[in-house]
Amino acid sequence: MSLPSAEPFGQCHIVITGGAGFLGVRLARSLLAQGQLSLAGAAPARITRLTLVDRAAPPADLMADSRVAALTGDLNVLLEQNNPLAPVIPADAAIVFHLAAAVSGECEADFDLGMRSNFGATLALLETCRALKTKPVLVFASSLAVFGDSPEQPVPPVVEDNTLPTPQSSYGIQKFICEQLVADYSRKGFIQGRNVRLMTVSVRPGLPNGAASSFLSGMIREPLAGVQAVCPVAADTAVALSSPARTVQGLIRAAEASTQAWGPRTGLNLPALTTTPGEMAAALARVAGPAATALIDWTPDPAIGNIVKTWPARVNTARARGLGLLPEESFEEIIREYIRENPYAVKLSIR
Amino acid sequence: MSLPSAEPFGQCHIVITGGAGFLGVRLARSLLAQGQLSLAGAAPARITRLTLVDRAAPPADLMADSRVAALTGDLNVLLEQNNPLAPVIPADAAIVFHLAAAVSGECEADFDLGMRSNFGATLALLETCRALKTKPVLVFASSLAVFGDSPEQPVPPVVEDNTLPTPQSSYGIQKFICEQLVADYSRKGFIQGRNVRLMTVSVRPGLPNGAASSFLSGMIREPLAGVQAVCPVAADTAVALSSPARTVQGLIRAAEASTQAWGPRTGLNLPALTTTPGEMAAALARVAGPAATALIDWTPDPAIGNIVKTWPARVNTARARGLGLLPEESFEEIIREYIRENPYAVKLSIR
Repeated sequence: MSLPSAEPFGQCHIVITGGAGFLGVRLARSLLAQGQLSLAGAAPARITRLTLVDRAAPPADLMADSRVAALTGDLNVLLEQNNPLAPVIPADAAIVFHLAAAVSGECEADFDLGMRSNFGATLALLETCRALKTKPVLVFASSLAVFGDSPEQPVPPVVEDNTLPTPQSSYGIQKFICEQLVADYSRKGFIQGRNVRLMTVSVRPGLPNGAASSFLSGMIREPLAGVQAVCPVAADTAVALSSPARTVQGLIRAAEASTQAWGPRTGLNLPALTTTPGEMAAALARVAGPAATALIDWTPDPAIGNIVKTWPARVNTARARGLGLLPEESFEEIIREYIRENPYAVKLSIR
Repeated sequence: MSLPSAEPFGQCHIVITGGAGFLGVRLARSLLAQGQLSLAGAAPARITRLTLVDRAAPPADLMADSRVAALTGDLNVLLEQNNPLAPVIPADAAIVFHLAAAVSGECEADFDLGMRSNFGATLALLETCRALKTKPVLVFASSLAVFGDSPEQPVPPVVEDNTLPTPQSSYGIQKFICEQLVADYSRKGFIQGRNVRLMTVSVRPGLPNGAASSFLSGMIREPLAGVQAVCPVAADTAVALSSPARTVQGLIRAAEASTQAWGPRTGLNLPALTTTPGEMAAALARVAGPAATALIDWTPDPAIGNIVKTWPARVNTARARGLGLLPEESFEEIIREYIRENPYAVKLSIR
């Protein structure tokens, strides 16, 4: 009787839409580093191919990996063209991470753009997966933005796994509609869908962007680089955050979970650390001293404050816990992770 | 100082998709009989035009009314053609009741048909309404079928206004997706949307159909006509029903409510009477004696029983109550209403 081999067997082709974006690149690097995936309780499969679909080209380190292929272009156009020589979803793709999306501000300013990029592209992607008849795993990056607070329908103080989403933005509506499509395509046996709701990710490396949540990275990232940053909301505003690493961990766990372990087809809220800008600044002081926190400018911006306070800040993620997904224990831990991963972006001395 | 006139002023053009179907015809007759509508708290407007859009032609009594126009054809095709000489939604339409849909059994058997008829047609209708720039009231007939029980995610014993729908059919998914679209088109100011979730309607006149719920009308309608009918589920199976009259009342109330009175853009569950086939048979005996109930054949059909037990049977419709919409007090009342309205279909003597 032979012992089970520890070597992975089988091969696995993975597609990431939005594969040149911040999360897509990080997910790609994690997958290439681990080299294999354990799909739905089966023996591990070696990751032999990783196709990154994005309007932008992936960074050089990814392109240098012989397992990586890039498909560059607008996702809607690529899906419409359905070029058999450069398929968005190749016939042997076992897993698709669908991260490509227009961000919330864009979708609110341009309704048709959001319907096309978020809703239309996802429906076309689902149809492409269905046509393969191979039932690929599709991990859909939904968002905590499906929850929206309004005077007519307040979000409860703690969001539970079965809280009714009442999106208050086109972005949130589009994400929630796509969750329903992913659920039904899964129920019908066209795909194995996994709806994963991402939290606000902090600390994001790189530059500020136009998102209302941008300051939740900037108020840490910029002071560490010796640059002033604004925190536009009150120090005691509760916010729900997740680090880049935990976010990617959640996406990979979703791909690996069996349908039974994953449970309901409804969106799964990823774990979140509930904190406040005040606590975040205190953690920054412990890590980088008062020189860092002196660079935070606490000038309120009511426009941003009014948006941020509609976001759920407390999420009880029992379902995620059951899959072994836990929130970070402290924001200080998140800051130290950022510093370890982005040493070039830190100018202050660290304690 | 003059007293406010009791005469309606202003004119009102109403469109009903599915206007030749059972509910559409009943809604049309009710609207024509009342002759006017009080829109969003404004003074009553006279109903001067009623356009019935359907694949079938409306019945003769409706066509004989000078206010009625019929537009006959496939809704998707009519919306695609967008014929300026025969618009689906004329420029002066103030209210659109969107009832046209493929039924649940069809959508489960033919996924593409459901996506086209229920989802695609609704999105095209929303775009047509948006293009008018007149912000018409759109009453969308959603369904209690958005709630679906599954082992992974049981429906709670009592469905509340904020219970999370987890549809377990393509029909339910498509209705729920359309609710989200109606909500966002409303939030953006493109329409004034009203999402109304209809209950199983009983007693429906006419012939049995292929719906799993068909027996909930047939077990009353057929015995009253002196014909045997099967009740395929256990006598103590709880079911949530609404009469045709209360269903139409709910649709009209939705059209008349102001946005503020209507409240959240989330779907509103119409009132339901919770009863059982056993109680329904007892009510039938009170109305038409043992000669009627002797015609009920209680042979179980597990296939139907398994579907029926996934439907919510108890619905707390606090939001509907706030709008003055109440469930019937007894099923006997519903039977007597059916007999009053369909005397030609009753052969037994009534007590």
